[in-house]
Order: sequence, then structure tokens, then C-alpha cells
Amino acid sequence: MPKLSDITNAALQAMSIKYNTRVYEMKQAGKDVLVMSLGEAFFDIPLLSFNDLPYPDLFHYSHSRGLLNLRKKLSDYFLKQYNFPFNPENEILITAGSKAAIHMVFMSILDPGDEVIIPEPLWVSYPEEVKLCYGIPVTIPHNKTVFDFENYITKHTQAIIITNPNNPTGYVYKKKELEYLLKLAQKYNIWLLSDEAYSDFVNDNSFYSLGSLDREKSHIVVFNSISKNYGISGWRLGYAISNEGLIFNLLKVNQHLITCPATILEHYIIKYFDEILKITKPQIFEIVEKRNRIAQFMDSIKLKYKEGTATFYFFVSISPTKLSSEEFCNVLLEKEQISVVPGIGYGKSCDKFIRISIGTETEEKNKYGLIKIRELIDKTK
Amino acid sequence: MPKLSDITNAALQAMSIKYNTRVYEMKQAGKDVLVMSLGEAFFDIPLLSFNDLPYPDLFHYSHSRGLLNLRKKLSDYFLKQYNFPFNPENEILITAGSKAAIHMVFMSILDPGDEVIIPEPLWVSYPEEVKLCYGIPVTIPHNKTVFDFENYITKHTQAIIITNPNNPTGYVYKKKELEYLLKLAQKYNIWLLSDEAYSDFVNDNSFYSLGSLDREKSHIVVFNSISKNYGISGWRLGYAISNEGLIFNLLKVNQHLITCPATILEHYIIKYFDEILKITKPQIFEIVEKRNRIAQFMDSIKLKYKEGTATFYFFVSISPTKLSSEEFCNVLLEKEQISVVPGIGYGKSCDKFIRISIGTETEEKNKYGLIKIRELIDKTK
Repeated sequence: MPKLSDITNAALQAMSIKYNTRVYEMKQAGKDVLVMSLGEAFFDIPLLSFNDLPYPDLFHYSHSRGLLNLRKKLSDYFLKQYNFPFNPENEILITAGSKAAIHMVFMSILDPGDEVIIPEPLWVSYPEEVKLCYGIPVTIPHNKTVFDFENYITKHTQAIIITNPNNPTGYVYKKKELEYLLKLAQKYNIWLLSDEAYSDFVNDNSFYSLGSLDREKSHIVVFNSISKNYGISGWRLGYAISNEGLIFNLLKVNQHLITCPATILEHYIIKYFDEILKITKPQIFEIVEKRNRIAQFMDSIKLKYKEGTATFYFFVSISPTKLSSEEFCNVLLEKEQISVVPGIGYGKSCDKFIRISIGTETEEKNKYGLIKIRELIDKTK
Repeated sequence: MPKLSDITNAALQAMSIKYNTRVYEMKQAGKDVLVMSLGEAFFDIPLLSFNDLPYPDLFHYSHSRGLLNLRKKLSDYFLKQYNFPFNPENEILITAGSKAAIHMVFMSILDPGDEVIIPEPLWVSYPEEVKLCYGIPVTIPHNKTVFDFENYITKHTQAIIITNPNNPTGYVYKKKELEYLLKLAQKYNIWLLSDEAYSDFVNDNSFYSLGSLDREKSHIVVFNSISKNYGISGWRLGYAISNEGLIFNLLKVNQHLITCPATILEHYIIKYFDEILKITKPQIFEIVEKRNRIAQFMDSIKLKYKEGTATFYFFVSISPTKLSSEEFCNVLLEKEQISVVPGIGYGKSCDKFIRISIGTETEEKNKYGLIKIRELIDKTK
């Protein structure tokens, strides 16, 4: 066999997908698994009719920025919901998932050797995506705050990326933190990227989109996901919003890599945009409420977790266990058939954590899982 | 604004998409355009029912190699249709279009500075995809044959990529040509990539999948597309087939870039695999027949084109016009409202060609378009 590339030989599997693939395979083999590892919330949503979607357009390629009517819907929504105006003609690009959008933005801004600052706990794909572009991920330990970030800026720094609200902690960045980061980006003339895929999973008024703070979009890129906020993760519809210049380079990359997201699904979302939101919003509200109750439950059994109020995730401390987070998760999966994701996937400072998701199982099952986690910590300390 | 990357500043728009975006915008503005530029064949296919697809699985992520049942369907089809056996467990990866699969394979095999040999006329995205991986595209002029390729191999060569059947010429590689290329790949220990997206658009027994000649798959990667052969280009379902080692690196890349193709569309194809083929196959046969008749028509008006018998494309010579291929296409689009794609997009040796597609308009309209092309050549020589 001819050689394979160094970057892909060195690439790590996405920790979350690696575990969820094991769950998938265990379930295929007929095993019952309590799933607290999936990066999805399961909603009760109907599959609406495909019959009246534009035929036969739904079979064919769409505009490689995404269908204009979908871009307009999103533009209206962002203005109303997040006080974030953008031009649907040339300041947004819709592609096959926000993950693809993030990678292609890295490709659009990084030259080899450029550094990207990534605070831990980090989303598992950021460092790998940066390395696949020959960039260098510079991670920040989980116990630092944004006011420490400047210490990590070098002459090679080209971007900072944050996840707001955060996956895996559920932390919502405060307005003054975002303003500080934006000033930092302007001071050093670097990009500030904000991945806001969980923007709707916030039950108070604490969330600020980065786009409401830099209306010129001269230093920012905002990512979001239709798949996530609509409970249809498997449909791969995500987007990037920024200034016209960056979006044009992104467009060129998208034309060569993906062309467009699945046209038929774009048409579906255009048609049912408001209807789906009406169905999902109460369920999103309910899942964040559930998160609040589970937080209280964790307090009652003395499970500690990183600060956060949003999403359907917790980043739970497994101190004082002697196990590494991977060992902990393997034991939990094999002995108790409970799947969670090892903290080490979220950064090297995070090996005494695990990520749990409360998005796919009942509250009772989640509590059962948490008790088993508490027990395993105690047994292995 | 902070800097953008050199690779994306230098990237060219995909020539075909650039022209088709202009067509899209002209049509939005109410203009009537005779479209011979689209990389699609329009079939008369019904939208079948989504009602009985696996609910709610269809909303969620699928396995990041693609759904196993879809991989099995493809494996059965390839064995029967192309005498090409592969293991559906670990020798195939399905993702959001064969374009994405090709790019991610380049990422999986290229280190910076590695060369990829690409014969002209080439598919527009290959050189850009190679450059986005910091590789070097080495193109071969259109008047060379595969028996000249060895002259282009250097110590930096890492791969050769061919399109079989060819877009834009419709040329089908002969068995002895493929065998020669395979020996070349083995001799120099390089990859031979075969993009077979138009494998079903062949009306005789002339097509050989590369996979029927190297069953170990030690030196080959075969790409194909569900979207193309099923007339649903906009659904973005393509795949790569190779040995387990390469597919594993590809899997890692796919996990970080895309996760999986649209799950609901995978389920749709699993359910209707045979039914759709039954509907599209006669239409594919018909369009290749139409191509034969149009070839005769071009002979009758003395339009020359590169050798080819398959697909729905022709690569038509515009010699002896004095115009560049871009100038020619611009005049044709603006004066006659006929869209075709400039040859220069298919390689620097191809500026006296245009690509025409007969996939989306009636035979009469295609003939009208060809007469106008003939006239424009004569007027500008």
C-alpha cells in the first residue's frame, strides 16, 4: 500500500463518535445500553409531508451558498431572536452541518503554522480540524477564564474559538466576557469564532450572540446549526455568518468540497421553519428545565460539575477516582451498560471529568446512571 | 479584517458552478436560459413516500461510515454489476457527496508538496482540492494518452486520478489502459484513484470498474455517487471504496468534517434502492441514446468533439474561434441566453473547448443550441 498522510495517521477519532459507534454496535448486537453519550436531544417531532415541496427542484443542486429563501428565513430569525443583523445575500453560507462550516472556515483563515486558541473543555473536533489545516491548536486549561486568554496570544495566533453555550459544560458566556474577547481580537487583529449551535437551549436571557456585538463582522465568524436547534442532527444543515470577504473564500471551498447541503431538506426547512420551531421550542424549554432538576439531584448525591446553566450536557468531575477518564468510561460501559464520554476527549486538562448528556433518556434513567457514576467514583478512589 | 489564508485567496471558483450560479440568478430575474451547463441529467422520477422510513431514527446521526444496510446494498450491487467485491463493514465510507469523499481521500494520502497527476480535460475540482491539501496538481495536456503518463511521474508523485467514464468527454477507459495504469501505480507504489460517478451512463459493455482489476485494493480508491446515478444530485450521497487502512484514515477525517450524510436520505435509498433503479435505468439508457443521436447531428454540422461514448456530456472544440473559451461562453450566454462551460475550467490545454451537457433540455433545444455554437465559432474565427 502506498503511504497515507502524516496528518491523518496522527488524527484522533472524535472521542464522542468513537464511544457512540461502540454503543451503536452494542445495540445492534441486542444489548440494552443507557445512553448518556449522544450529542443530541431527542424531541418528539412529527415527520411533516414532503409532498408539496418544490418538485423536481428538490432533486437537484441548490445555490452553493444555500437556498436564498432559507438564508432569508435565518436572517429574519437572527435579527428578531439575537439582535444580530446580516445580509442573506453574501454574509452567510449554509452547508452540510456546522462541523463542515467550522472546518472550511479554518481552511479559509489558516496558513500552515498559524495558531488557534481553544479553551478547554473544548469541542472534540476543533483541534483535529485545525491540525488537518496544518494549523496549531493552543489549548487553555479548564480552570482559566477568558481574562487569561491574552497570555496565550503569540505572533502566530490567528484565531480564538469558543463554544457558546458551551458543550460540554453548558456555560453561557457573559456579555462582558464576549466584549472583552472581541476587544482582544481587534487589538491583535485576529479572528474570534463563536460556535453557537446550542443557542436555543438557554432558558433565561443570559445568551448573547457574538453577532450582536460586532455588527460589521470584521473580526467574527458565528456558526450555528439547523440540525441541532431543530432536533434533526442527522440532517446535516449548518451555517457560518461573517463578513462578505470571508464568506466568499468559504464559498470557494464549499464549491470544491460539498457544493450544497441536501436540497430537499433545505426546502423542507423553508416550508416548515415556524411550524417546527413551535413544536421544538417547548421541548427545548422542558429539557433545560430537566437539566436544572438533574443539577439539583447531582448536588444531592454530591456529584460535582463545571459551572453551566444551558444545553443538555454536564461536565461531571470524577475526582477522586484513580481511573483515567477513558478507563472510567470503559468500566461504566462494560459493567453497567451506561455510556458517557471521557473528559480527555475535551482536552488534556480534563482527564478527571466525563461528559454526560441528558438529551436521550428519561429523567429516572439519567438519575439511575448518575447514581452508578457516583458509586464507581467511590469504588475506585 | 484579519488575514485570510493564502490557499483560499488563491483558490478558483469551480468554473461549472460559477456559470450555473449565473444561470440560476438570470432565471431568478425572469430570463429564459437554454441550459447546457449543468452537471446533472434530469430524470422523470417520482418522490416516493417518506412515511414508512424508520422513525425517529431518520432524524438522528447515523454510523459515520454510513448506514450499514446501505453499504451492504452497494456491496451487492457492485459485485453483480461491476464484478467488484468489497467488504461493506470496513472498505467503504459514505459521505455527503463523492466530491467530499475525493477531497477527504486527498487529505488522507497527501503530505505537503506531494504531486497528483491529473490528465486534462480534468474535473474542475481536482486541482483545487489537491491545492487545499497543500499538494501539487500535475496536469497532462488533453492530447496525451495514458501511455504517456509515466513521463509525468517524479519522486514526489503520490497519486494519479482519472474520471471514468470521463466528464467532460464521455470517454470510457479501455481495460488495457486501466491495467497499464494499475501496473504503473504498483511499480511506483502510488495511488490510482478512479472517479466513476457516471458508471451507469454507458450503453455497451465497455466500462470496467477499477475495482474489478485490483481486488486487494492495495493501490486503488474508487469513488462513486448515489446522487448522480439516481438523478438526485442535490441529495449529496457519495462514497469511496478502498482497503481497510485507507478507509480508516478517511473515517477519522469524516468524523471531524461531516459526521455522516443526511440520515433520512440514506434510509430513503435503502428502502427504494431497486425501485429507483428500475425507474432511472431506462432513462439513463435513453439519455445515452440521445447522446448518440446528438453526436451524429454534430458530425452533420461539422462540430468536433473529443472521443467519447458515455455520460451526457460532450467536450466540443471551438477552434478556429479567436475567442478564449470564457469569452466564447460569455457571449453565448449574454447574446443567445445559452449556457455552456468554458473549456479552460477543465485545464490549461483546453481553452479551445467548451463543455456541453445534454442532460436537462430537449433534443430539439440542444440542437438549436449547437447550431448557435456553430454560428458563433464561424462569426469569431
